[in-house]
Order: sequence, then C-alpha cells, then structure tokens
Amino acid sequence: MNKVNLRDKLTRFDDLWSPKIVADMNDYHVKVVKVRGEFLWHTHAETDELFLVLKGRLTVRRRDGDVTLEEGELYVVPRGVEHMPVAEEECHILLLEPAGTANTGDAGGGRTAQDERI
Amino acid sequence: MNKVNLRDKLTRFDDLWSPKIVADMNDYHVKVVKVRGEFLWHTHAETDELFLVLKGRLTVRRRDGDVTLEEGELYVVPRGVEHMPVAEEECHILLLEPAGTANTGDAGGGRTAQDERI
Repeated sequence: MNKVNLRDKLTRFDDLWSPKIVADMNDYHVKVVKVRGEFLWHTHAETDELFLVLKGRLTVRRRDGDVTLEEGELYVVPRGVEHMPVAEEECHILLLEPAGTANTGDAGGGRTAQDERI
Repeated sequence: MNKVNLRDKLTRFDDLWSPKIVADMNDYHVKVVKVRGEFLWHTHAETDELFLVLKGRLTVRRRDGDVTLEEGELYVVPRGVEHMPVAEEECHILLLEPAGTANTGDAGGGRTAQDERI
C-alpha cells in the first residue's frame, strides 16, 4: 500500500538521462527522469512512450517537427517514430513504458541506462 | 503530434466521477476525472489501476486501510483489490488503465461512465 510522492523521489538522485522506476502497473513501469541537453535519436519499434513534464520544459524532436512540453503537459510518442528529447534547462519527467523498454530504444550504446528502482 | 495540457483538459467538463480519455498509449487510456464525495466499493479483477492526484486530496479506501494522496502523489491499486475512492473536496486525478476498463469495475450499476474523449 505504498504511495509514491514524485517530488520526494526526484530528490533521491541527480544523474541525468537515467530513468528510475518508481511504480509498477501491470507489465508497465512508471519512471521519473531528470534531463538536460540533448539525448539521441532513437525509436521504440514495439511500443508507444508517454512523457509527462513535472518541472521545466521538454522538446521532443521528431524528424517531421518538434513537440514542446511545459509542466503539466504530456505527449505520447507513437511506436516506430524516431525522436530525440532535448531540454535547455534541467527538466523532470514522468515516463510510462512497458517494463524492459530501453531509454535508447533501437539505438543502444553507452547512454543506455540500467533499470534502477528508487 | 498533439500534446495534452492537463489543466486545459480539466476546464472542459464539470461532471464528477466521469473519466475523460485524453490520450492513448498502446492499448491503455490516459484519463482525467473530477471527483468529490464517495464513489463505491469495486474491484478490477483483470488490471491494476493508477491514480495520480493533479489537484486536491484523494483517499483510496481499501478493506485493510486507507491510502491518502496529495497533489503529485500516485498510487497503483493492484488488480483484484477492492477499493473505493473518496474526496472531501473536489479533487482532480489522472488515471491510467487498459482501454475498456469500467470505472465501477465488477460492481457495475448506474455510476458506470461511458468512454468519452475530450
């Protein structure tokens, strides 16, 4: 019966682009992540990915245009759509995606984060 | 490429206990709902259900105790666990659940809301 306080969870880490699992829902993970700067172009071929901005501003670049999200705004990147998250200033995000979804999708590489619970 | 502004969506309706679909993610629906007072005891046998409080305070009663959520707090009711949401004052919530999940679960009855998109 543990509730999750998102602000509290966000005080527990400082590393960027490294999503932390805060809750399970069926076979999905709810994650929080701190970002700043550019990530990398990648695609999740098998799943949509939900971004909800908790603090700051996030731009989700797509090859066909940008989606800029302010606090309290969400966007679902459709499966198969190449995208790159970018934030000029530090931005805090809630993510929802199936358990096992890699942050780097099909791109892989050194910025691929390991699953970590907080 | 439509983003969703949750505050804006919440200005578009006033009825209580009637979740509105604001986004799709895979076979899940993201919904927002306004609540006040008591709902009813019910269970979702087939799915967990995520509550994230956007404004106000929500108590999720379970037979074995209460979980009280403030703004920015989330709780996942496990599948099969009987629960009743209660709010003394008007409370705004983001819900996540599989498409087709009834708000009244196995209880059914007159408070069962129809799917509506806003």
